[in-house]
Amino acid sequence: MTSQPSATHPLAAPLLSGSRRALARAITLAESSRPEHVREAQRLLAELLPYTGRSVRVGLTGVPGVGKSSFIEALGLRLAGEGHKVAVLAVDPSSQRTGGSIMGDKTRMPGLTVHPGAFIRPSPSGGALGGVARRTREAALLCEAAGHDIILIETVGVGQSETQVAAMTDVFVLLTLPNAGDELQGLKRGIMELADICVVHKADLDAAATRRAQSELTSALHLLTPRSASWQPRVLAASSLTGAGLPELWAAVQACVADETRVRARRQSQLGSWFEELLREAAWQALTSRLDAAELRRVRAEVDAARLTPVQGVSALLEAVGRA
Amino acid sequence: MTSQPSATHPLAAPLLSGSRRALARAITLAESSRPEHVREAQRLLAELLPYTGRSVRVGLTGVPGVGKSSFIEALGLRLAGEGHKVAVLAVDPSSQRTGGSIMGDKTRMPGLTVHPGAFIRPSPSGGALGGVARRTREAALLCEAAGHDIILIETVGVGQSETQVAAMTDVFVLLTLPNAGDELQGLKRGIMELADICVVHKADLDAAATRRAQSELTSALHLLTPRSASWQPRVLAASSLTGAGLPELWAAVQACVADETRVRARRQSQLGSWFEELLREAAWQALTSRLDAAELRRVRAEVDAARLTPVQGVSALLEAVGRA
Repeated sequence: MTSQPSATHPLAAPLLSGSRRALARAITLAESSRPEHVREAQRLLAELLPYTGRSVRVGLTGVPGVGKSSFIEALGLRLAGEGHKVAVLAVDPSSQRTGGSIMGDKTRMPGLTVHPGAFIRPSPSGGALGGVARRTREAALLCEAAGHDIILIETVGVGQSETQVAAMTDVFVLLTLPNAGDELQGLKRGIMELADICVVHKADLDAAATRRAQSELTSALHLLTPRSASWQPRVLAASSLTGAGLPELWAAVQACVADETRVRARRQSQLGSWFEELLREAAWQALTSRLDAAELRRVRAEVDAARLTPVQGVSALLEAVGRA
Repeated sequence: MTSQPSATHPLAAPLLSGSRRALARAITLAESSRPEHVREAQRLLAELLPYTGRSVRVGLTGVPGVGKSSFIEALGLRLAGEGHKVAVLAVDPSSQRTGGSIMGDKTRMPGLTVHPGAFIRPSPSGGALGGVARRTREAALLCEAAGHDIILIETVGVGQSETQVAAMTDVFVLLTLPNAGDELQGLKRGIMELADICVVHKADLDAAATRRAQSELTSALHLLTPRSASWQPRVLAASSLTGAGLPELWAAVQACVADETRVRARRQSQLGSWFEELLREAAWQALTSRLDAAELRRVRAEVDAARLTPVQGVSALLEAVGRA
């Protein structure tokens, strides 16, 4: 036996002592799809797991143009200035590592990028959303082990990325613009129901429109079922330019996570859902690896044309797998 | 070989000629879980498939007390009186066949129950929602083959049953009461976004409250992303007691299905989703049948307690299956 599966991983100690370089390398390892890297990353994660979980995990979303970057820059600098260690991650299944993902474009957050208390990591490069989400969840755990007590996870709103980010955070913040009515139409279905806090951003632009937007959002939220029985979503206004509203926003985040029982219940339910999702995905991979792709396409076309019922189509495919 | 798989099923001809008894027996066959019945039902469905698809499929939902039964009774009698053949089905995963499911309680629709042009079928008895939904979809196909040109499918709102009913119908109608604001709070997340038509029911009770509810619903719908780009949801008022609003409701249903391209696209996408859902469920069954239940519970508890990451938990389970 030359491998030493019980030895401490060399990145563990520097990462735990807060080395940004070790953290960056550990995340790179967790993002790799090479089987030996996957095993190594899982071993490292297992070692670090006892040091995770002690952060506030905040998800952020909003349509393009709402100013997510400037909001994160302003909020992150404020929090880092108060002595917090802030990590900024992203879920963007459309991002390409080459040329820098949206989050990778560090010019978006010039101040936070160079702040010693902050750590910014671009979205894992493109691929299935499930993979991007898994790697972001693991990056968040690694950031926690490295001592980051605030994790901000941005979503760019592609595919189901908002749902995924809401499913890995304690608080989910929706940014909107003062012309909320028009803009909410552009939001994807169900996103408003995920929000714990709505922020009318760029409130400096037009005070009257901001108040109108707050009132519209409050009415709309009133008509929706709250995500949690013990938290009524709040509607705030903020400006990254002037800094107005940021202290109130952070107070609302703290109020939302003050109920430890609810946070613990949400995290446990998130872990359970993620586990089941991974297991279902593994089951799907196991079946599809045995299906003949051409046969699958043929049966699917028959179902689409209503020449086979879906039940008949699936039976035909399963019989073919059984014979193979 | 004594079986004659290519022979015509004895129920096919009487069913196609409109025999209610043959239709009822065919649905019973499709609801059975005995393997020989399942095979027989699938053979019958395959024969009848060319005669299906020529109906308007309407889904109906609303909180308990909104008056779904009296609405279906009033609407169904009106349509049957105009010469339509109306079938009423239900998706109720909580129903028990013994003692009659909610839909089985035929006293709920006394007039429609005895009308020769109408066919009422209780929800398939309890079990997994997937099974109930599959059997209701197949019952709808059988009703179409028997000449029913209008299929009304009611959901009692348990679990994900609204989503399932919206996924098997051309038009989805949400019934509400004149005190809409309060009551919408009781609606499950996302239900309003499924609605093609909202009806303020029991409009005879209070004209002013009805108008207020219509206005509130219209505002709320305006803030949500429409389900289809080519159909803006409509808000109507109706009374089953006086019959007021029922012609307008049916006109709205017809307007919603007038765009044949959209109906065809929706049905094709429904078939595709159903097919993938069945295939994923089959994959899940295949994997879980090989998992040790005690081991699954143990790993799940470790994940819930955050002592294993979900990825580690799933890896451990898959390794155990691989060794078995």
